[in-house]
Amino acid sequence: MKIALSQLNYHIGNLRYNSEKIINAINKAKSENVDLIIFSELAVCGYSPFDMLDNQEFINNCEHAITKIAAHTKEIAVIIGAPTINATLKEKKLFNSAIFIKNQSIIKTINKTLLPSYDVFNDFRYFASNDIFEIIEYKNKKIAITICEDLWDEQRVNGNFSKELEYKNSPLEYLSKFKPDFIVNIAASPYSHNHANTKTEILSNNAIKYSTPIIYVNQTGANTDLIYDGGSLAINSKGQKVIEANYFEEDFKIVNSAEIEQLKEIQKVEFNKYTYIYKALVLGVQDYFKKSGFKKAVLGLSGGIDSALTLAIAVKALGSENVEAILMPSAYSSKHSVTDATDMAERCEIKYHIINIEELRQNFEKTMSSVFKGTKQDLTEENIQARIRGSILMAYSNKFGNIVLNPSNKSEIAVGYSTLYGDMNGAISVLGDIYKTEVYELSNYINQHIKDIIPQNIISKAPSAELRPNQQDSDTLPDYDLLDRILFEYIENNLSASEIEKILGNKKTIDFIIKLINNSEFKRFQAPPILRISSKAFGTGRKMPIVAKY
Amino acid sequence: MKIALSQLNYHIGNLRYNSEKIINAINKAKSENVDLIIFSELAVCGYSPFDMLDNQEFINNCEHAITKIAAHTKEIAVIIGAPTINATLKEKKLFNSAIFIKNQSIIKTINKTLLPSYDVFNDFRYFASNDIFEIIEYKNKKIAITICEDLWDEQRVNGNFSKELEYKNSPLEYLSKFKPDFIVNIAASPYSHNHANTKTEILSNNAIKYSTPIIYVNQTGANTDLIYDGGSLAINSKGQKVIEANYFEEDFKIVNSAEIEQLKEIQKVEFNKYTYIYKALVLGVQDYFKKSGFKKAVLGLSGGIDSALTLAIAVKALGSENVEAILMPSAYSSKHSVTDATDMAERCEIKYHIINIEELRQNFEKTMSSVFKGTKQDLTEENIQARIRGSILMAYSNKFGNIVLNPSNKSEIAVGYSTLYGDMNGAISVLGDIYKTEVYELSNYINQHIKDIIPQNIISKAPSAELRPNQQDSDTLPDYDLLDRILFEYIENNLSASEIEKILGNKKTIDFIIKLINNSEFKRFQAPPILRISSKAFGTGRKMPIVAKY
Repeated sequence: MKIALSQLNYHIGNLRYNSEKIINAINKAKSENVDLIIFSELAVCGYSPFDMLDNQEFINNCEHAITKIAAHTKEIAVIIGAPTINATLKEKKLFNSAIFIKNQSIIKTINKTLLPSYDVFNDFRYFASNDIFEIIEYKNKKIAITICEDLWDEQRVNGNFSKELEYKNSPLEYLSKFKPDFIVNIAASPYSHNHANTKTEILSNNAIKYSTPIIYVNQTGANTDLIYDGGSLAINSKGQKVIEANYFEEDFKIVNSAEIEQLKEIQKVEFNKYTYIYKALVLGVQDYFKKSGFKKAVLGLSGGIDSALTLAIAVKALGSENVEAILMPSAYSSKHSVTDATDMAERCEIKYHIINIEELRQNFEKTMSSVFKGTKQDLTEENIQARIRGSILMAYSNKFGNIVLNPSNKSEIAVGYSTLYGDMNGAISVLGDIYKTEVYELSNYINQHIKDIIPQNIISKAPSAELRPNQQDSDTLPDYDLLDRILFEYIENNLSASEIEKILGNKKTIDFIIKLINNSEFKRFQAPPILRISSKAFGTGRKMPIVAKY
Repeated sequence: MKIALSQLNYHIGNLRYNSEKIINAINKAKSENVDLIIFSELAVCGYSPFDMLDNQEFINNCEHAITKIAAHTKEIAVIIGAPTINATLKEKKLFNSAIFIKNQSIIKTINKTLLPSYDVFNDFRYFASNDIFEIIEYKNKKIAITICEDLWDEQRVNGNFSKELEYKNSPLEYLSKFKPDFIVNIAASPYSHNHANTKTEILSNNAIKYSTPIIYVNQTGANTDLIYDGGSLAINSKGQKVIEANYFEEDFKIVNSAEIEQLKEIQKVEFNKYTYIYKALVLGVQDYFKKSGFKKAVLGLSGGIDSALTLAIAVKALGSENVEAILMPSAYSSKHSVTDATDMAERCEIKYHIINIEELRQNFEKTMSSVFKGTKQDLTEENIQARIRGSILMAYSNKFGNIVLNPSNKSEIAVGYSTLYGDMNGAISVLGDIYKTEVYELSNYINQHIKDIIPQNIISKAPSAELRPNQQDSDTLPDYDLLDRILFEYIENNLSASEIEKILGNKKTIDFIIKLINNSEFKRFQAPPILRISSKAFGTGRKMPIVAKY
């Protein structure tokens, strides 16, 4: 049986656009005499439409789209993800389904069993869990259809309760009793650099455990903060990858089920950690703009590493003709800030403007002088500069329609060292899931492997916010090496202060940093969406109370 | 059996503070010869600690707190809510439990069966569902213990799929087989004015259905955006309220189980819609400050109704000595704006400052002139004013520690008629769940029933943002009466454009408004937490995609 893995980039809620893509892929498959074409989880509406799923008209429209797609399936079969109504009238109103269509008829609807509800996932908010296990028969082959998390039954629970399993059921345990010829898994599995290998391992382990090949079709593309990496696979019953679609782009692969066991294993390529992170961020920016109907971006260029890296990514994603920068020096800006920023802008061949904020800064302080009389200069005056800059970027955005990119990194967002309504402004945070040490590593990666674009001086100088004379980040924070290790243990690994101390020592520093993190929840609540590339990003996947005793 | 209903206001994560409160209540109950004292859901840690529950140390600390509390239960029994570990090592790692303690021993742990995962609720993210139904025997009485949602088994699903039930199980159906003498329900049930009666009805209906009295203990107090109304109840087997605790404050009530059936029904008092909304908002502001360790607030006073109402609520919540206002007129501010705002501030007896922003506004435009040369005045210049004001409030906050209150109302947040990083600034949105028509009604309610504090001129003048000459809200929006009806059908009732048109006509206006709502998702994502008083507030309970086709 000739099977096509159709890996597409969907637009959430855009049923017409998605249907057209799907029908085009079906037609292409037909032209290549494919017997079965497979699309990813919730392909028809994009994953995840969130509370759009609460609206019955939306679900009806998804049904209509499926009917329309089915009309194009003469002499081909299709497996496609869509929400369907739970007809039992009890429990959640929907199922997250894989619909099997053949010869213009909907033959069977298979529903998702394991519903992830942790981190960024919230399937249980919308979907009832399946408890009927059935097999599809097609062209004398038995196909076990599963949906994404259904293969993750051996997963450990979220948090640091390491002994427990997240689920009590294993859909494949039931399905394997039918002795399927192969397993299909349709997915919408977002990228995280910490879990990139886990995904393949889980698929391989299942193939080996049940001695059955697996065909895995993931979506690609970014939806606001979540970036889906594609990388659809065919895995033989020995757990070896034999077909692999491209990462972070659409792809179309064909595999013959009779040949899966004979195909040669794809040799594992050793990747730099940043190969995929870079692709993910570029796609994240690209899709935010494309799917929102925006074209042009603007960002503040300070001469520091964060805004330089953000610019490099934006230029790759949108083209240099669509990115503009504004340099906004004040009296506290060092001379090299302006020359470094100018150098960066010119290397990127973008349009840039220099708007000196010194007069405005002084005018702001003058305006406040009646109420500030007798007070000392402090953080307030530093924040005023950041908010002037943030307001200038927004004014530029309002006037010309350029969308503001936020350059804050994960380390500063963690400890709250960025100004709310100032440098935290932006429609999307490009580096918000990249620690400061990773900002340097990614910059070096780009310079070495993509294009030598970030001036060495920006990389080598000591980091500074330049909001007061001779300020340096190290005045108030530990070295980024130590800081980022503390942050990683607290945020990604969810360890407590005492557990981190056992690993890293430095009790005083650890307590100080954790206090900063917890005290910044109110700021992060109002941060822009952050492109997620790790297993625990700030944003919807990390829900902490604001008013609480930590 | 003498039973105490202990309705307390907990601090999330503050186990020591909560334990002390609980132990004090136990001691009080002992002094009144109470046999059983009941505390609310997750009382020990406050509801909801969200992802704090992912940390094993936090759960261990909750266990220790329970042990400490148990030491104080000599000659008394306690029912108390706490997270407990799911020892099966499969499915979610925790249960949301009611622990029955007697004479210093933990006798039984009863777990929550129905786990709400819709709107602001996310129990399934953390908790496994119970499937063992047991009864407690104490002093020759059989007690059926349930946790909050466990009694809501007949609830319809969220969204507009009106025929379906949210759950397939009914814990009381199992428990009723034991023929309990009474049912206990421990809850953490947030207030919403649309559901205030539903709550009592559900309890009554269950009492009647099973011919069994119910004792319901809810928490009170606000945790960031969610406000819990208390109102703990004893209901007889005929479904009549016989004991009712106060609303929006701590309370301690005693009922004798032998007498529940004989007690007289409490007569229903007819309330103004705003009696409880007002109490809720005052408590919301109060607890945000108290539980965060803040004392002083500041807000911008424009002379308009929204900031005036916000001020009235803040003064009630925090005291006039703890609230300050800043008037920030520009060239576009009408004369009456300043006089009305001054009048309001003086009626509230608060400290206020007038900071004229005209020079700063001109200086900002001058700063932008090199890049704005040749462009026309538009929304940009209006937003500049809003952002200058927002930055002034934040500068005041940074300098003196006053926390900024956000005065945006639900109608403007819905259609995006507020400036991100400008008048959307603030730590907490006081009126963000109050439609503009309700802003007027609540203002009138306060003037008539609480204190005549808001100047009539502020209430009667036409609403205007005063960001350009002679601007009025009605220039670009329909009348608020119509607007708010459209918003209510779309947001609270989740109807589609065509469904709303069937009710209200006005297709063109409806389409225009719905487009504005959907296009503002990116703004709302960065809005402050909004005090929730309706069944569907903007914020965590309404999760819509930002990048999507609506």
